[in-house]
Amino acid sequence: MNYCSHCGASVTHRVPVGDNLPRHVCDQCGRVHYQNPKIVAGCVVECESRLLLCRRAIEPRRGLWTIPAGFMENGETATQAAIRETLEEACARVEAVSLYGVYNIPHINQVYLMFRARLATADFAPGPESLDVSLFAEHEIPWDELAFAVVARTLRRYYEDRRSGVFTAHVDDLLR
Amino acid sequence: MNYCSHCGASVTHRVPVGDNLPRHVCDQCGRVHYQNPKIVAGCVVECESRLLLCRRAIEPRRGLWTIPAGFMENGETATQAAIRETLEEACARVEAVSLYGVYNIPHINQVYLMFRARLATADFAPGPESLDVSLFAEHEIPWDELAFAVVARTLRRYYEDRRSGVFTAHVDDLLR
Repeated sequence: MNYCSHCGASVTHRVPVGDNLPRHVCDQCGRVHYQNPKIVAGCVVECESRLLLCRRAIEPRRGLWTIPAGFMENGETATQAAIRETLEEACARVEAVSLYGVYNIPHINQVYLMFRARLATADFAPGPESLDVSLFAEHEIPWDELAFAVVARTLRRYYEDRRSGVFTAHVDDLLR
Repeated sequence: MNYCSHCGASVTHRVPVGDNLPRHVCDQCGRVHYQNPKIVAGCVVECESRLLLCRRAIEPRRGLWTIPAGFMENGETATQAAIRETLEEACARVEAVSLYGVYNIPHINQVYLMFRARLATADFAPGPESLDVSLFAEHEIPWDELAFAVVARTLRRYYEDRRSGVFTAHVDDLLR
């Protein structure tokens, strides 16, 4: 950040009065520009015993597999964001959406809010950001071709919970 | 947002190519400035059968009571944020911190991540943002003097769960 998005003057990275962390502060209007973690909302979509995965058509990690997930938008709830991302990336409608996990990834300033949901109809297809969408049994999951560590972590946890028969919302940290 | 924080040129609010929502786009360097919900991390702090509340020394809602909570910072986990806010606002150290609730407040673009924790030592005191810090039994909770609807919602749920003996992480939406 180099310029104040409000008045266009230059900003200085310094600790504002009454604060204890450096922020981008406008040299002219004094506005403080906070930068905070972003929420990524995602969905583990079940269809009987199989899970829906999308093969990414965009960078980063083009060609690798992921669960439907993306940045939460202003004006929506995290649940709505997870449902929307599933519709956009897999053209799939889901129901019985419940919180499944919170994954902190502090070195990239992201918090994943993962939900578990059921495919509502048998319809799915690649959206503009996907090359392919498919259902996978556990032994078919492409573990070596998953796009992100958080996806692998979520799926491992899912299969552990499925074996134990108890799905509980959990918090986990992915540290560098 | 009026100016590009990267190059200082003016921005236009329009739908970028390949997107489906209007964003602030720089007229000169083309950078897209996304705006996303912020996470507030908070803590329901238990000390035996009582809960710790802080009386706010700052606006908004100066003089009203809240649980320790505040904006999550880049580079930390949500759990660390809840622990830090409790230390800053109530000078209190907590342990046994577990996820308790996700509260979506879409009209102000906030998601509260609420944790439940135990006061680790008997020490607490008002931090710079608090006028007072105190422990409350259920019948002492100042329901008419709580700072935010999300605090009332969280505390009501807490007492319901305490009566049932089962605390589960839940998702709730506060809609306008």
